[in-house]
Amino acid sequence: MRRLVNDGYEVVEEMLEGYCAAHKEYVRFADNKRVLVSQKMSEEPKVRVIVGGGSGHEPLFIGYVGENFADASVVGNINTSPAPDACYDAVKAVDSGKGCLFMYGNYAGDVMNFDMGVELAAEDGIRVETVLITDDVYSAKNVPDRRGVAGDVPVFKVAGAAAAKGYDLDKVKALAEKANSNTYSMGVALSSSTLPVTGKAIFEMDEGDMEVGMGIHGEPGIKRSKLEPADKVVDQLLRYILEDAQAKAGEEYHVMVNGLGGLPVMDLYVCYRRVAEVLTEKGIVLHRPLVGNYATSMDMVGMSITIVRLDEELKELLDMSCDTPYMKL
Amino acid sequence: MRRLVNDGYEVVEEMLEGYCAAHKEYVRFADNKRVLVSQKMSEEPKVRVIVGGGSGHEPLFIGYVGENFADASVVGNINTSPAPDACYDAVKAVDSGKGCLFMYGNYAGDVMNFDMGVELAAEDGIRVETVLITDDVYSAKNVPDRRGVAGDVPVFKVAGAAAAKGYDLDKVKALAEKANSNTYSMGVALSSSTLPVTGKAIFEMDEGDMEVGMGIHGEPGIKRSKLEPADKVVDQLLRYILEDAQAKAGEEYHVMVNGLGGLPVMDLYVCYRRVAEVLTEKGIVLHRPLVGNYATSMDMVGMSITIVRLDEELKELLDMSCDTPYMKL
Repeated sequence: MRRLVNDGYEVVEEMLEGYCAAHKEYVRFADNKRVLVSQKMSEEPKVRVIVGGGSGHEPLFIGYVGENFADASVVGNINTSPAPDACYDAVKAVDSGKGCLFMYGNYAGDVMNFDMGVELAAEDGIRVETVLITDDVYSAKNVPDRRGVAGDVPVFKVAGAAAAKGYDLDKVKALAEKANSNTYSMGVALSSSTLPVTGKAIFEMDEGDMEVGMGIHGEPGIKRSKLEPADKVVDQLLRYILEDAQAKAGEEYHVMVNGLGGLPVMDLYVCYRRVAEVLTEKGIVLHRPLVGNYATSMDMVGMSITIVRLDEELKELLDMSCDTPYMKL
Repeated sequence: MRRLVNDGYEVVEEMLEGYCAAHKEYVRFADNKRVLVSQKMSEEPKVRVIVGGGSGHEPLFIGYVGENFADASVVGNINTSPAPDACYDAVKAVDSGKGCLFMYGNYAGDVMNFDMGVELAAEDGIRVETVLITDDVYSAKNVPDRRGVAGDVPVFKVAGAAAAKGYDLDKVKALAEKANSNTYSMGVALSSSTLPVTGKAIFEMDEGDMEVGMGIHGEPGIKRSKLEPADKVVDQLLRYILEDAQAKAGEEYHVMVNGLGGLPVMDLYVCYRRVAEVLTEKGIVLHRPLVGNYATSMDMVGMSITIVRLDEELKELLDMSCDTPYMKL
């Protein structure tokens, strides 16, 4: 194992303690220590945006709790949904009478547990709505069946900005749904991540192989094949993404080249260079690109590309100032 | 190889093209394409801070060019000093009559080439001074012989803030020297990095081994030993660092837990948790900790700890607002 941890069963607790200690001006624990609450939440009653999911994707989900972004994050074990009571505890910790929006990537365990959180809140008279992120274009033909990957970040951002503007829950939800509909991602993996409890890779992958379309937990992609040059890998991902988005010349897109954890920053910029080249050739306007590790799979070597089709409304929300440990605008 | 690049010989050019395309509001190429110049440089004549070194440590050195930080970065090949003409071209690109400060980690090749840049500038009547970063406490007993590692970041930051305040070259240099004298780092590696040209690791390291005290290019540490729990590794690093710094209760330190590239964010926070625990127990006050990948060695798995002893003057400069792709305050 090439990891620096103590007891593998305590790693999530220790990470969260370290995170809260390092960023105490941004977050604090709720009574439930699997819930992080923003220190920068407006005192005014507003819709609260609650994000969450399994650990192992840092800085997602914890890194975007702060001003004009997420108000709370609910944290599960590694690659495991948060517990239903934690989802509800997040609601109790932040609700200000205007209701809450749950946002998370579309995985069966998360859907089950967050939905139980919605029911528990309803019993106490708190309205909680849900927007699932479904940006991974290769994961299913039918959009609502798709998994959520790095597209979580811009969709959370839009919802956080909409809530900060004081919009009501229906409007925040509708804007988050629009952002999700306009968001398309696909990734490539060159290795598995390593589980700290077992010290082993989740799956085996030979050095020199890659899998285009693989999910962030190792869900199967198109096929295992020999590693190709970066430009060819980018071209292959963009072919799927742009076709799915039916992207047209003259449209404007927010673009992310996201590292999965173990890929050097150097390689991310080599990939971004090709992304910008291809999109520009197609007459697509790139808006405020992001390059870096935004949604990872621990030490997985790989990257994903995300594009978000913009209109004036989404652009304003996406560009609205925010202050979190992992995004400051 | 687990890297996403094209031609290994073109990787630095392609990275820089990608970087300039992604961050065009922050940087542009000088005529020399191994020199990045800030787009946010003050129009007022001021001392210019020029940082640089070999590639493969991103976001160092390119990521901190911007407002109130570095004015230019000079870029070498991977683990290789920039060429002397590039060092001088950076001076020509940014000097405003107030002189320039070269800042880089203390490695023989860098010293030779940057010094030739100083001479070329002197021939044209431009005064350039140098502050070497020498923060790696294990690399030599004698401080001026020590290598520069992640401590580059806070020392550059202090100099950039001092220059932005309009201080003259002597004062900017003196403050940078004070920051360097107060900065102490030490790291641990669990793997080599991978060179894109050869596709091979720089050195061999068995899975399950670690080397405490290793440099960011693989310079030897204390000894190769079996991987230990994170807390024990942190304790070992802190023992050296705190002894070297002669850190005392009541003193205030800026603290960085820096990832070397391939270590998950999760593990960095597990390590930070222990750093905060130990320093707090010793009565040391932690100021604005940083946790993340600030100075890497491509895909090397490992981390380093840096502490910077603060007084009011250094603290004000370190905390001064700045706007760069990899640090915004």
